[in-house]
Amino acid sequence: MAGPYVSFLTDFGTDTAPAVCRGVIWSILPDARINDLTHTTRKFGIRDGAFLLWSAVPFLPVGVHLAVVDPGVGTARRPIALQATRGDILVGPDNGLLLPAAERLGGIAAAHVLENRALWREAVSHTFHGRDLFAPVAAHLAGGTPIGEAGPPIDASDLVGLSLPDVRVRDGGLDTGVLFVDSFGNSRLAGQPDDLAGLRGRLEAGDRFKVQVGGKVLDVGWQPTFGAVAPGEFLLYDAADYAGLGIGVNQGSAAERLALANDTPIRIEPA
Amino acid sequence: MAGPYVSFLTDFGTDTAPAVCRGVIWSILPDARINDLTHTTRKFGIRDGAFLLWSAVPFLPVGVHLAVVDPGVGTARRPIALQATRGDILVGPDNGLLLPAAERLGGIAAAHVLENRALWREAVSHTFHGRDLFAPVAAHLAGGTPIGEAGPPIDASDLVGLSLPDVRVRDGGLDTGVLFVDSFGNSRLAGQPDDLAGLRGRLEAGDRFKVQVGGKVLDVGWQPTFGAVAPGEFLLYDAADYAGLGIGVNQGSAAERLALANDTPIRIEPA
Amino acid sequence: MAGPYVSFLTDFGTDTAPAVCRGVIWSILPDARINDLTHTTRKFGIRDGAFLLWSAVPFLPVGVHLAVVDPGVGTARRPIALQATRGDILVGPDNGLLLPAAERLGGIAAAHVLENRALWREAVSHTFHGRDLFAPVAAHLAGGTPIGEAGPPIDASDLVGLSLPDVRVRDGGLDTGVLFVDSFGNSRLAGQPDDLAGLRGRLEAGDRFKVQVGGKVLDVGWQPTFGAVAPGEFLLYDAADYAGLGIGVNQGSAAERLALANDTPIRIEPA
Repeated sequence: MAGPYVSFLTDFGTDTAPAVCRGVIWSILPDARINDLTHTTRKFGIRDGAFLLWSAVPFLPVGVHLAVVDPGVGTARRPIALQATRGDILVGPDNGLLLPAAERLGGIAAAHVLENRALWREAVSHTFHGRDLFAPVAAHLAGGTPIGEAGPPIDASDLVGLSLPDVRVRDGGLDTGVLFVDSFGNSRLAGQPDDLAGLRGRLEAGDRFKVQVGGKVLDVGWQPTFGAVAPGEFLLYDAADYAGLGIGVNQGSAAERLALANDTPIRIEPA
Repeated sequence: MAGPYVSFLTDFGTDTAPAVCRGVIWSILPDARINDLTHTTRKFGIRDGAFLLWSAVPFLPVGVHLAVVDPGVGTARRPIALQATRGDILVGPDNGLLLPAAERLGGIAAAHVLENRALWREAVSHTFHGRDLFAPVAAHLAGGTPIGEAGPPIDASDLVGLSLPDVRVRDGGLDTGVLFVDSFGNSRLAGQPDDLAGLRGRLEAGDRFKVQVGGKVLDVGWQPTFGAVAPGEFLLYDAADYAGLGIGVNQGSAAERLALANDTPIRIEPA
Repeated sequence: MAGPYVSFLTDFGTDTAPAVCRGVIWSILPDARINDLTHTTRKFGIRDGAFLLWSAVPFLPVGVHLAVVDPGVGTARRPIALQATRGDILVGPDNGLLLPAAERLGGIAAAHVLENRALWREAVSHTFHGRDLFAPVAAHLAGGTPIGEAGPPIDASDLVGLSLPDVRVRDGGLDTGVLFVDSFGNSRLAGQPDDLAGLRGRLEAGDRFKVQVGGKVLDVGWQPTFGAVAPGEFLLYDAADYAGLGIGVNQGSAAERLALANDTPIRIEPA
């Protein structure tokens, strides 16, 4: 029979830190099925981690999702666990990282501060709470320890929030911004295909848009697939990992071509 | 008891896409043993993926091998599953990616187009068939669903092929080309040690060859191991992952030194 | 019930070599729980691998720890297995890679040369002992084969050693050197916090030190956490993965700023 499921996302990079945390989890819960979501989240990129976790959770088994992107490690920021309505538990720092995923799993049913040191490692460092606090708590919760034993409840409205790019329809166009750039250079934009559809009363394959970014103006088509445009050509598309707007280049990098980064402002108008 | 074995190879990179696919597999088949072959295959590098899969399969357990390097996602290219004679099933796009591995597993016993949407995810995107089509089909097949339920059989001769560098003995030398460059910069060449042996009637450690590539001519020895030459020196060797010809540099990168890439022509003559 | 635990650390990079070894392990021991510590150890970096293994093992389950950083593959260097006092078995080349970890697991209770070819793969290449020799032996040992069946015992004093930076208190300062640089650019230094405490009779948050490296002299504070200094500022800290001295930059790279690499000499004096 398959063991309890644990997702694991960090910005720890390619050294041994993620494996050390898996070792801690397996020491507590030997049959855990650990799914490493990614450990190359941009360093200290809380919003990148939040986007990646948010975009992954609908496709993951119900279980514990451990996420550690934690520039405030060792400071007063709180360690938390969130019970989501779908039945999942999210474990990580209280810095906004877990909130979008919790919303996507039906919302926060309960929030707890991880104050019960009996669930931590005995010796807790100042700089590696992933190993010493978050991983062992996640293992205990995945193994069946009730979330209420991890620490006292807190009000979800007291959790630290997350800033996201504004989306606004203005003067017949969509003012948006970059949410996330993936390793291909494809970029997710705040907003939905319906926002583009609203600009021209429809949204069909081949519809053209004027995309303004930095000093540049591009004429780009809305396309169902990358293969619908020639290699090197731009497209606007429904990003499958996101069910939102994406801008990409077939077999190329939109981020490099347009110098896109998180929060880069973009305006899109019907062409 | 150990669960069913599933290999997994893509060019998805270091974001969460591979983990999302593992989540889909584990949602269907919780006890799958998933072996991530690599997810940093060169982007859109169908032949790199084909080489990597081909070179790995003899050492892997019999099971399902899922591979997705798929520049044609969302176009008319067919999703397929190949039953290999050894007992394995290969799942991926019909673009040549699976063919060398299938040959190495004894040849294609049956080929099917994955048309049975009951084995797909309910919502299928245009751009992420790894998650929505290939992963769930692979999980069902690994779990025991007969390959015939995945879709109708097709003739193996109708599958899309793969172009490989020519190998030819001419004027006392071997005309060959680069098959694959690994992350060390070592390069696999089309052809076999026997081809070199044929040029001089034998092939022994220390035998010297003239290697012509670009405008350069090098004098390189055939050696059993990297440690047999000084750091920074070239060697020709029997590439263990391939049982074919390799050219490398001890503690260095042959690819950087000689500007090698896929299909770079190389001529080798006895020195 | 959870299967036997196997750690796995190499410098094989991001191609399929680690996965091929996992395939070999799972072919022999289908329920092995394999924990990939890292495969991006600096190429041929025996000491980097030794440091990473040493720093990880206290947090890992008791089991088999397979490590392959092996510039001498195919030469006369010996393949070995070390029984550690804690109950673990370390498997890898006899080049110093395994020694610090064995010490940290209580010391070497027994050492054996892996000469029993019955535990190897049938065909053994000259260049890929990870797949053909180390992985299968590790799988057999994890599955319960007694270490004495892997080959004859050897005296621990005959094992190849490892060179480490000197640490010396001289003229009221600490002469030390870089042990390891991680993927954030944080650097571990030879020596212990107690060595710094000895220089001024105490060691408290905010205590200032003069750090000399290359031609530079920096004034750096001893801090419990990265968050205690502003982004871009240096700190000296107790490295949690190491319980030793670290030098870092909050949200930056100390290694880049100071051109640190293994064995770079550093002198630290009270400021």
